[in-house]
Amino acid sequence: MEKVNLKSQNIKKEVIQIFKKYGLSTNHATISANALINAELVGAYGHGLSRLKMYCDRISKKVINPKPKIKIKKISQSISHINADNSIGFVAADIAIKKAIVNAKKTGIGLVAVKNSGHYGLSGYYAEQAVKKNLVTMIFTNAPPAVAPHGALKSLFGTNPICFGTPTGSKIPFILDTSISMINRGKIRVAARNNQKIPLGVALDKFGKITTDPKKALKGVQLPIAGFRGSGLAWMVDILSGVLTGGNHAGRVKDPFDDFSGPQNIGHLFITFKTNLFVKDYSNRIKDNIKKVKRLPKIKGVKEIVYPGQNKYKRFKMNSKKKIKITKIVKKDLESLKN
Amino acid sequence: MEKVNLKSQNIKKEVIQIFKKYGLSTNHATISANALINAELVGAYGHGLSRLKMYCDRISKKVINPKPKIKIKKISQSISHINADNSIGFVAADIAIKKAIVNAKKTGIGLVAVKNSGHYGLSGYYAEQAVKKNLVTMIFTNAPPAVAPHGALKSLFGTNPICFGTPTGSKIPFILDTSISMINRGKIRVAARNNQKIPLGVALDKFGKITTDPKKALKGVQLPIAGFRGSGLAWMVDILSGVLTGGNHAGRVKDPFDDFSGPQNIGHLFITFKTNLFVKDYSNRIKDNIKKVKRLPKIKGVKEIVYPGQNKYKRFKMNSKKKIKITKIVKKDLESLKN
Repeated sequence: MEKVNLKSQNIKKEVIQIFKKYGLSTNHATISANALINAELVGAYGHGLSRLKMYCDRISKKVINPKPKIKIKKISQSISHINADNSIGFVAADIAIKKAIVNAKKTGIGLVAVKNSGHYGLSGYYAEQAVKKNLVTMIFTNAPPAVAPHGALKSLFGTNPICFGTPTGSKIPFILDTSISMINRGKIRVAARNNQKIPLGVALDKFGKITTDPKKALKGVQLPIAGFRGSGLAWMVDILSGVLTGGNHAGRVKDPFDDFSGPQNIGHLFITFKTNLFVKDYSNRIKDNIKKVKRLPKIKGVKEIVYPGQNKYKRFKMNSKKKIKITKIVKKDLESLKN
Repeated sequence: MEKVNLKSQNIKKEVIQIFKKYGLSTNHATISANALINAELVGAYGHGLSRLKMYCDRISKKVINPKPKIKIKKISQSISHINADNSIGFVAADIAIKKAIVNAKKTGIGLVAVKNSGHYGLSGYYAEQAVKKNLVTMIFTNAPPAVAPHGALKSLFGTNPICFGTPTGSKIPFILDTSISMINRGKIRVAARNNQKIPLGVALDKFGKITTDPKKALKGVQLPIAGFRGSGLAWMVDILSGVLTGGNHAGRVKDPFDDFSGPQNIGHLFITFKTNLFVKDYSNRIKDNIKKVKRLPKIKGVKEIVYPGQNKYKRFKMNSKKKIKITKIVKKDLESLKN
């Protein structure tokens, strides 16, 4: 896979210009570009610039609304409901996490539901915002069908990530952001674009046979983690982010790459709460917790037991100093979208 | 494994008498007996009467407090903190879920943390109470070390269940209650007591070798679901139920069967919220969601795609009509505890 080196600040400017050309306000274009570049910097390429063309195509086809009238409804001091008017997902999620932070700071707990949104990239990106404000957070979103419910031969659940974040008493936040599928759909897409294979045992083709061909996997089903347990967790996320919020659910979220027949109407749910509701010394307690785990005897070859988010943080720091490596395909996308 | 048939109502009376003999109030004895008998009726034998002797032993050894002074601290209309004073876990959890229900009914959302509690049986049992009051609920509790963090050679996390419940618009609630280990520790204990084997690939012995011997598995480590993903989920549960609440965490929860050197100081976290915060027709939406999943094409041999809690409900209904089958070992426990 050939790659091109570019400065992240330069790419970000380009992406902002592209989004503005497609009708987004400077503010919305900047929020969206920041999220995409962040995904590149943490190494989550499947959620990064490889999606830029898709977002622009959806705006062109009028299934993402570049000028949304986003409404925030106050349910209580703690609870808010956002109708994102089919904005680009990044913008809906950015408003939602900021509202959830305000609600939690005011009352101890925040619960913010979003409907009529779209794919927002990495849940962990929004979790980080809450953690930086010293809050614990849980974030749920559904996604287009990718994973077959336990016992079914057809995909219905999305890769439906479960995201949890907490301050750690150090500068590196604890951010668990795990899809309930064996592999992220974004990674399969990247493999497909670059003609790479995917690992054995993570996906079936459309006939129900195991496959390592990412293109066949995209037409087939992804396998959930741990059978009925993972299937149950995926179902929980579909209910929390779709059924509860007023978003699409039960397999109705459209695939953003393949289905331009309408907006995605994705739902998200953001829960935030203060760390000091029940204990005075949360910072010391979590530091102690992490230290105890890190001091365990390790499996041969393991240098350090890392907590979720730690490697991502390291990659972000390292990549922020260097130029971003983007594939030639993404470079071509950037060129063609600019003009 | 030889079994004896007994009427569940008769056993319940016996269990109440036993708990009262060990110093519990009639109310606390009844709450505890109900939880144990429920576990038997839903087929979760590892959380049922096989634990009765352990609870009584812990009371005798003064590491469960039979006459706790349980304090409920109001943090806000939505948020409460319970110090269970090392009560038997059933009682702490029963008070906590009832408080979480009241808070959610009043404000839309309830958050109740418990510290200084003990093993409370099945999370799903408490989730059911909230669901019957038409609330969505999430419940977290930690447990004694059983699962090795990803990369570690030693257990530290408990089997730390994730529990989620929602009304379904039908009489059978959706209750996901899944430990993050490949197998429940209770099931390994039952296998050990009955000299049965456990499946391959769910546990390692103390030397790090795969084993099907439940006794060796109890001295070794259980494997988390899905490697680092399951390990991360277990860590999340330890933080939510231990670090946040003021309970024990980071592997300090004592094994209730083996360690009588002090109380467990387990923490629990109960989240509850109304179904109609963001949509008017939750009942129809969830009915539609479940119907869509159930109508998917099925894998050969699968008669019905079931949602979490459905099979448990069926077993409960079926077993409630019949006598309970208990093992001779449990029968012996009952006899000796009575006298």
